[in-house]
Amino acid sequence: MSGRGLFITLEGGEGSGKTTIIEQMAHMLEQQGVPYVVTREPGGIDIAEKIRGIILNPDHIAMDGRTEALLYAAARRQHLVEKVEPALMQGMVVLCDRFIDSSLAYQGHARGLGIQEVLGINNFATNGRFPDHTFYMDIEPEVGLARIAAGQGREINRLDLESVQFHHKVREGYLIVAGMYPERITTIDASRSQEEVAGEINSCLSALLKDFLI
Amino acid sequence: MSGRGLFITLEGGEGSGKTTIIEQMAHMLEQQGVPYVVTREPGGIDIAEKIRGIILNPDHIAMDGRTEALLYAAARRQHLVEKVEPALMQGMVVLCDRFIDSSLAYQGHARGLGIQEVLGINNFATNGRFPDHTFYMDIEPEVGLARIAAGQGREINRLDLESVQFHHKVREGYLIVAGMYPERITTIDASRSQEEVAGEINSCLSALLKDFLI
Repeated sequence: MSGRGLFITLEGGEGSGKTTIIEQMAHMLEQQGVPYVVTREPGGIDIAEKIRGIILNPDHIAMDGRTEALLYAAARRQHLVEKVEPALMQGMVVLCDRFIDSSLAYQGHARGLGIQEVLGINNFATNGRFPDHTFYMDIEPEVGLARIAAGQGREINRLDLESVQFHHKVREGYLIVAGMYPERITTIDASRSQEEVAGEINSCLSALLKDFLI
Repeated sequence: MSGRGLFITLEGGEGSGKTTIIEQMAHMLEQQGVPYVVTREPGGIDIAEKIRGIILNPDHIAMDGRTEALLYAAARRQHLVEKVEPALMQGMVVLCDRFIDSSLAYQGHARGLGIQEVLGINNFATNGRFPDHTFYMDIEPEVGLARIAAGQGREINRLDLESVQFHHKVREGYLIVAGMYPERITTIDASRSQEEVAGEINSCLSALLKDFLI
């Protein structure tokens, strides 16, 4: 296999099960002998890690929302150029946990900076390079947060502690974005059992790979 | 004096005499008892200094041009929010050495990222807040660089060592930008004697202050 790879991103709110799904997709690719990379921003890229360090530094209480959005876009650019694009050039499948749509939903819509405005700076960052396909794991925030509280997922982080209203805004943002890109984004009902979700994702991924492996 | 201040920026290539002009403008404001601030990005703002630290770190040879442009825009945002806007809100005159037009000329045009593209991310950064007035110090790159070499200005920096062709591209960029904003940008022929340039700047500044002080 050579030439262009396949760039797949996973999106969704807290407790939507992205991590489990990525592991499952990786397992499927492994079994089929398809070369792949699993990543998430900042992806171990030195410059991107340093940018993220500025974003997450608890001393930076004065950080403006637009500064933050620009820093996320900068880290995204560097991760894309140094890690995602080289893997795609080698013909690999890249599975990325969160990408441009997270910024659109969280910062553009939920934080109120505007989806189009945040899309503008991210288009600059990606030079128009969108994922080939995106799975959006849709779930009621109450259900997702309850999963985390019940220890079915990972540890609780800063974002989990935002108001439930904020998480509803995030979901609303994702639904708007999914409507903007119906061809690229597949919305998955993530409230179902893990087996049902896994089944749907597997068949979608198989279809994507079929085109890809030709 | 209260309410909105006056936001003035100085722009120009290397050796165009910006620093001298800013000192002179500050002196004039001082004499007239007009409250003012002289600044330049990152302006001592902690977050902006840290962002600039990433841009200038010599280890970061892998830094992509778009990452750099986004980081400049992020630092600009924070400097604007933390330093420029509060001073303007206090009714002060803010004299800023370089601002949005530098990014348009250097990164947008000379580095080839596109003026409109770089304008897009900077519009996001400034939330549409442009300087009230800008003085662009126009000079032949050979003349400006010769001034620096002759020790009439400051020390030689990394940018001075770019090819003369690059500095011509910067000038070309500035001229395009000046044409885009004829109301806001006054182009000053900086090849003339210091006295002549000072005279023109002083009368322009007086006119701006006349409206401002009403």
